[in-house]
Amino acid sequence: MIEKQTNTRQTVDIDLAGRGYCIQIGPGLLNLSATYAQLPEASSAVIITNTTVDALYADGVHAALQQRYGFVHKIVLPDGEKHKTWASLDLIFSALLEKRCDRKTLLFALGGGVIGDMTGFAAACFMRGVRFVQLPTTLLAQVDSSVGGKTGINHPLGKNMIGAFHQPVLVVCDTDTLKTLPGRELSAGLAEVIKYGPIADENFLRRLEVDIEKIRQLEPIATAFAVQRSCQIKAAIVASDEKEEGLRAHLNFGHTFGHAIEAGMGYGRWLHGEAVAAGMVMAAHLSVRLGLLHPEKVKALTALIDRAGLPTMGPVLDSQDNAKRYLQLMRIDKKSQNGAIRFVVIHNDNSASLQTVPDEWVAQVIDACCQA
Amino acid sequence: MIEKQTNTRQTVDIDLAGRGYCIQIGPGLLNLSATYAQLPEASSAVIITNTTVDALYADGVHAALQQRYGFVHKIVLPDGEKHKTWASLDLIFSALLEKRCDRKTLLFALGGGVIGDMTGFAAACFMRGVRFVQLPTTLLAQVDSSVGGKTGINHPLGKNMIGAFHQPVLVVCDTDTLKTLPGRELSAGLAEVIKYGPIADENFLRRLEVDIEKIRQLEPIATAFAVQRSCQIKAAIVASDEKEEGLRAHLNFGHTFGHAIEAGMGYGRWLHGEAVAAGMVMAAHLSVRLGLLHPEKVKALTALIDRAGLPTMGPVLDSQDNAKRYLQLMRIDKKSQNGAIRFVVIHNDNSASLQTVPDEWVAQVIDACCQA
Repeated sequence: MIEKQTNTRQTVDIDLAGRGYCIQIGPGLLNLSATYAQLPEASSAVIITNTTVDALYADGVHAALQQRYGFVHKIVLPDGEKHKTWASLDLIFSALLEKRCDRKTLLFALGGGVIGDMTGFAAACFMRGVRFVQLPTTLLAQVDSSVGGKTGINHPLGKNMIGAFHQPVLVVCDTDTLKTLPGRELSAGLAEVIKYGPIADENFLRRLEVDIEKIRQLEPIATAFAVQRSCQIKAAIVASDEKEEGLRAHLNFGHTFGHAIEAGMGYGRWLHGEAVAAGMVMAAHLSVRLGLLHPEKVKALTALIDRAGLPTMGPVLDSQDNAKRYLQLMRIDKKSQNGAIRFVVIHNDNSASLQTVPDEWVAQVIDACCQA
Repeated sequence: MIEKQTNTRQTVDIDLAGRGYCIQIGPGLLNLSATYAQLPEASSAVIITNTTVDALYADGVHAALQQRYGFVHKIVLPDGEKHKTWASLDLIFSALLEKRCDRKTLLFALGGGVIGDMTGFAAACFMRGVRFVQLPTTLLAQVDSSVGGKTGINHPLGKNMIGAFHQPVLVVCDTDTLKTLPGRELSAGLAEVIKYGPIADENFLRRLEVDIEKIRQLEPIATAFAVQRSCQIKAAIVASDEKEEGLRAHLNFGHTFGHAIEAGMGYGRWLHGEAVAAGMVMAAHLSVRLGLLHPEKVKALTALIDRAGLPTMGPVLDSQDNAKRYLQLMRIDKKSQNGAIRFVVIHNDNSASLQTVPDEWVAQVIDACCQA
């Protein structure tokens, strides 16, 4: 039975000097002890999850890990982006110390991006660094957090402002977990899947235009391919630029506007992927304004985003001067340098670049792309 | 005049793949703009210091940095080990965000080990990593924190439990700052200087036996040499073992007992160096008990520690069962693995090794080396 299930496993190898790891993609992987067979030995393993995911998947993972580790502990955090704070991180540290965890202890992040980011950051900081495994249970986390080693928490003055680059030793994308994901969150994950098309791969964008409804229905082959190709594209970009000084910034297509939407609405009101979706439309219009992109491309991208069940317009953040508010929020974004906002814009050949743009042009795009 | 002052500058080059840096050692370095001439460009620099050091040295550093950076900000934290917490770190993050600092911003840690550890950790985490400079103003920080890249904060359940390895881009050990250091703290720093003898360098140990009073009087040549040689020895050890998996653990000679003393007394009651001093005597006795060290060597080391103005006996932490309390505190130390305590013991040839030791033997040493 194990044999049969492992046959459907896809893998993506992430190649980092001395710290490479494998992403396993497929149905039913979480509960298989074979999934964890290559992990380093340790006296204890700790599953870190949230209340929602705990009820669905923690028991299966616990049973599989118990075959390998003498002690398997579990830390259950409150669910939601608003808990991506130091307070939650401190719950993790206190539990690890109370359970006498040591430098060999492995942490397992079982949940979405919030759990992955916090567990990864806890692993980066606990005793100055322990190993961790990502077990992403949302589409967003599977296609975005699986690759890149970004970890962190939010600060009241900005999202993801405190964190570290810390690579997992293994990532397991069990596509069965997407069945329990609310439709709104599945769509939010699709925003990051779609993103890889315009910045890097025209064929993938065309395939998504064919398959988008199949993926929303979680048809297995289309879903696994979307996850795998997303991870591959991200891996290729990250491999060339681990610390985000150049090419990697292209992955933030739609994110500068998106972060302003998330911050301006109050974190959690709009899902990250929803904000990125509207942000991609804005960034595409900005690309047209700069003469880099044909208007037909914006139309096609907007249509695909709409079919994915995602918003194509941003919210009004300030009824008095909406564009000013967006600009204000974007200026504090950590991608800004010396106060200048650098936008990821896209080109007709499905590539991207970074540009600073006059505030006035940005304001025009915001005015055209927002609705109350 | 600058020419004259720079002539007395000693340097130690720290060689790390892609992230090497220089330690400058000498009098009057902090206020010289030449000291900072090789640093990367940035629109802003931030001095992070405490209330005590601020009054003594911040103005001079500020003036020197203003010749190079457009904006020079200052963050003043409360003084003391008890403030080496998340709360202080959050003050730093909030100030950096309020001042619109970005990924190019340089942080300058002006102060002792607490300021260095917190600033380094803030630099490691702010926007997932910015550059920082160490300006250590205590002997302990100059000989210990200058090399190794260890940063972090304390947790109520253990010292330095949360942190990161993050290398500075420059370290400036201005020996003039030692003139304002209380005698007790100078002695505490000498504990870490002395430490390098028994674990690595017999000649250095002999030289300290000759020079110890001169160094306590801050005679310039003896002082600069002690700082330089300490940094060199630590650098050689760290270069071979950046992430503390082998040889580097030898630097913790005296620290396992020492951390128990600090934790057991309540952080701040005993200075770190004082606790390490008593801890070195204990670890030396343990080495004798294991048949690794000649008793005469313990006597000589104890005499040197005493001449440095340091305690040679540990405190009684529990009048009922003192040894049990020490063992309990040591078992939670992050160097323990699977609950076993690994002690750094020393050998007759001025080398060190890691050993686990039966609790009973450890208890005998504690009983012999403590006084109320």
